[in-house]
Amino acid sequence: MRKILPTVEALVAGILAGNRVLLAQAITLVESTRPEHIALAQEVIGQLAAQQEPAKPTLRIGITGAPGSGKSTFIEALGMHLVENGHKVAVLAIDPSSSLRHGSILGDKTRMERLSAQDRAFIRPSPAGDALGGVARKTRETIFLVEAAGYDTILIETVGVGQSEIAVHSMTDLFLLLLLPGAGDELQGIKRGIVEMADLLVVNKADGDRVPLANQARMHYLNALHLFPAKTSTWIPQVLPCSAQSGEGILKIWETIMLYAEHTRQNGFFDENRSQQALFWLKETLQAALMHQFYTHPAVKNLLQQLEPNVVAGKVSPFAAAEAILKVWDK
Amino acid sequence: MRKILPTVEALVAGILAGNRVLLAQAITLVESTRPEHIALAQEVIGQLAAQQEPAKPTLRIGITGAPGSGKSTFIEALGMHLVENGHKVAVLAIDPSSSLRHGSILGDKTRMERLSAQDRAFIRPSPAGDALGGVARKTRETIFLVEAAGYDTILIETVGVGQSEIAVHSMTDLFLLLLLPGAGDELQGIKRGIVEMADLLVVNKADGDRVPLANQARMHYLNALHLFPAKTSTWIPQVLPCSAQSGEGILKIWETIMLYAEHTRQNGFFDENRSQQALFWLKETLQAALMHQFYTHPAVKNLLQQLEPNVVAGKVSPFAAAEAILKVWDK
Repeated sequence: MRKILPTVEALVAGILAGNRVLLAQAITLVESTRPEHIALAQEVIGQLAAQQEPAKPTLRIGITGAPGSGKSTFIEALGMHLVENGHKVAVLAIDPSSSLRHGSILGDKTRMERLSAQDRAFIRPSPAGDALGGVARKTRETIFLVEAAGYDTILIETVGVGQSEIAVHSMTDLFLLLLLPGAGDELQGIKRGIVEMADLLVVNKADGDRVPLANQARMHYLNALHLFPAKTSTWIPQVLPCSAQSGEGILKIWETIMLYAEHTRQNGFFDENRSQQALFWLKETLQAALMHQFYTHPAVKNLLQQLEPNVVAGKVSPFAAAEAILKVWDK
Repeated sequence: MRKILPTVEALVAGILAGNRVLLAQAITLVESTRPEHIALAQEVIGQLAAQQEPAKPTLRIGITGAPGSGKSTFIEALGMHLVENGHKVAVLAIDPSSSLRHGSILGDKTRMERLSAQDRAFIRPSPAGDALGGVARKTRETIFLVEAAGYDTILIETVGVGQSEIAVHSMTDLFLLLLLPGAGDELQGIKRGIVEMADLLVVNKADGDRVPLANQARMHYLNALHLFPAKTSTWIPQVLPCSAQSGEGILKIWETIMLYAEHTRQNGFFDENRSQQALFWLKETLQAALMHQFYTHPAVKNLLQQLEPNVVAGKVSPFAAAEAILKVWDK
C-alpha cells in the first residue's frame, strides 16, 4: 500500500456499492500494522456501522479439517454451488501460522481456480500476523466489511490446530468439520475438542474405493457424538459423506446447513449467539487495545525488560514485579 | 476482618516464623476485595519476596477428580502420610463455583478431621469469588505465602469442570487425576483434556469387590494414554490403584511423585516450568490489574453501559463501540 490512500468516503461508498477493489483495499487497511492505516480502517468500519441499512441476513460458516482432508476443494465445491444458486460468497481464512509458512493457506487462490473466477465470489487469503488474537480480530473486522459489501455467505477456513478453531467458532454461526474416510485416521490430527464444537461433520473423499471406509468413519463419528453433552443450540450434529471432487453430497450438505440456520433462527439461538459473539469481540478489542497501550509504554517496557529475567530466575515474585510495573504505568 | 489489621512487619515476621494465625490473616487479606486489604497483602508479598532466604525446595501438586472419586479422603490420606514423614503440608483449593455453593469444597475441614488436627498441616478452603481468574490469582498468591511460612508440599484441590483444572495446572509442578473404578465411568464427568494434562492417574476406591473394576479402569487408562502426544517433561504418565480409605497404595503414589520430581528436576523441566509459570502469572496479574482499572473507570463504565445494549442488538459494531470507549479512557 504505497499508493495514495483512498478517502474514508470513497471506501465507505465503494464497499456499500459492492466495489471489490475498494473492499480489498479496506481489508488491507484492517490488516495493516501502521497506525494511520488502522485509524482509517476504524473510521471506515465506524461509518459503515452507522450508515448500514438493516443488514440482509447472512450466514457465517467456520470450516476446519485435518491436513489432507481437502478443505480447498470442498470450499470451492460448496462455493460454486452457492454462487450458482444466486448467493454472494466470501472465503476468508484464519491461520496464525501463516506468517511462518508465508500464507500457504488460501495464499493460493490458484487452488480455487473456478471459484476465484466468479463475480459473485470474493476470496481473501489469511492475513499475516504472529499472534492469533490479532489475526482473529482482523478476520472479525473483515467479516464485517464483506457483509457490508453484500456478501451473504461467509466461509471461514482454518487449520486443525486447536486455538484457531476456537477463534473461528467465536465468529461463526455454524462450525463444519471436514474428515477423511478410513478408520485410524479418526484420532489423528483433529483435537478432540474440535469434534465437540462441530455442528456438521463431513466425511470428504467418499468416492470410489473409499466409500466403505467413509461409511465406517461416518458410523464411528455418529457413535462418538453420543458421548458429548447436548448443544445449547439444541441442534443435533449431523455426519454427512461427500466427494468434493465430484460434487456429490454438496447439495445435501447445503440443505443441512439451511436446516441448521432455520432451527437456530426459530429457537432464538442464532441471534443470541451473534449477540454474545458481538459482546465477546467488544471485550476482546478493548483488551487488545489496552494491553497494546500498556506494553508499548516506554517506562513499562523498560522495567519489564529489567524485571523479567529476575522473575524467570525466581528472584522476584511475579506479584511484586507486577506491582512495580503498574506503579510506573500509573505515573 | 473487623479487627485491627496487623502491621506489614508483624505479618512478614510471623509468616517467616511459621505462625499459623498470622499466615491465615495474610491469606484473608489476599482474598479480600477491599482496596486497603489488597494493598497490605501486596506489601507483605513484596517484602517476603525481597527478604526470603533462597527457598527450600517445595513441591506443588494439583489434584482433581470427578465428583465422588473421593478427593478429600485421598488428600487426607496423602497428607497424613507426608506429615508422618516429616513434611509440612498445605492444602488449598480452587473452586470457582464455591461462591454459589457457599464454599462446599474444603469448606469442610471436617472432611479432613485427622489432617486438620496436625500441627504440620495447614488447610485452607477455597476463596469465594465469582471470576476464575481472580480466584486463581488469589490461590497463586496463597501458595507463595504458605511456602514462605515453611510448608514444603502444597496440595491444590479442584473440581473436575475444566477451566479450573487449567488454572491449577498453571501453578503446579505435577498434576494428579483421581478416578473411579469401573468401566463406563471413564468418560463421565472428566473432560478429556484433563486426562491429557495428568502426570499421574490414581484409580481410587480400589478395595474389596472393586479391585477387578479398578484393574479394568487402570488398563483402560494405560491404553488411552498411548493416544496422547509425549509430554514436554518427557515423563510417561503412570496409572496407579489406591484405597484412600485403607491407605493402601498411598506409599507407592508418593514414591511415584518423588520419581517424577527427580526426573523433571534432573532434565531441567521442573525449573523451566516454574519459570514459565512465573512469567505467566506476571502477565496475568498485569492484565487483571489493568482491566480492573479500565472497567472501574467512571467514564468507561458509563459509556459501556450505554453501548452494550446496542452492540448486543447489532445496532453498533463491537469495533465502533470499542473505539468510542477507548476515546473516553484516553482522556
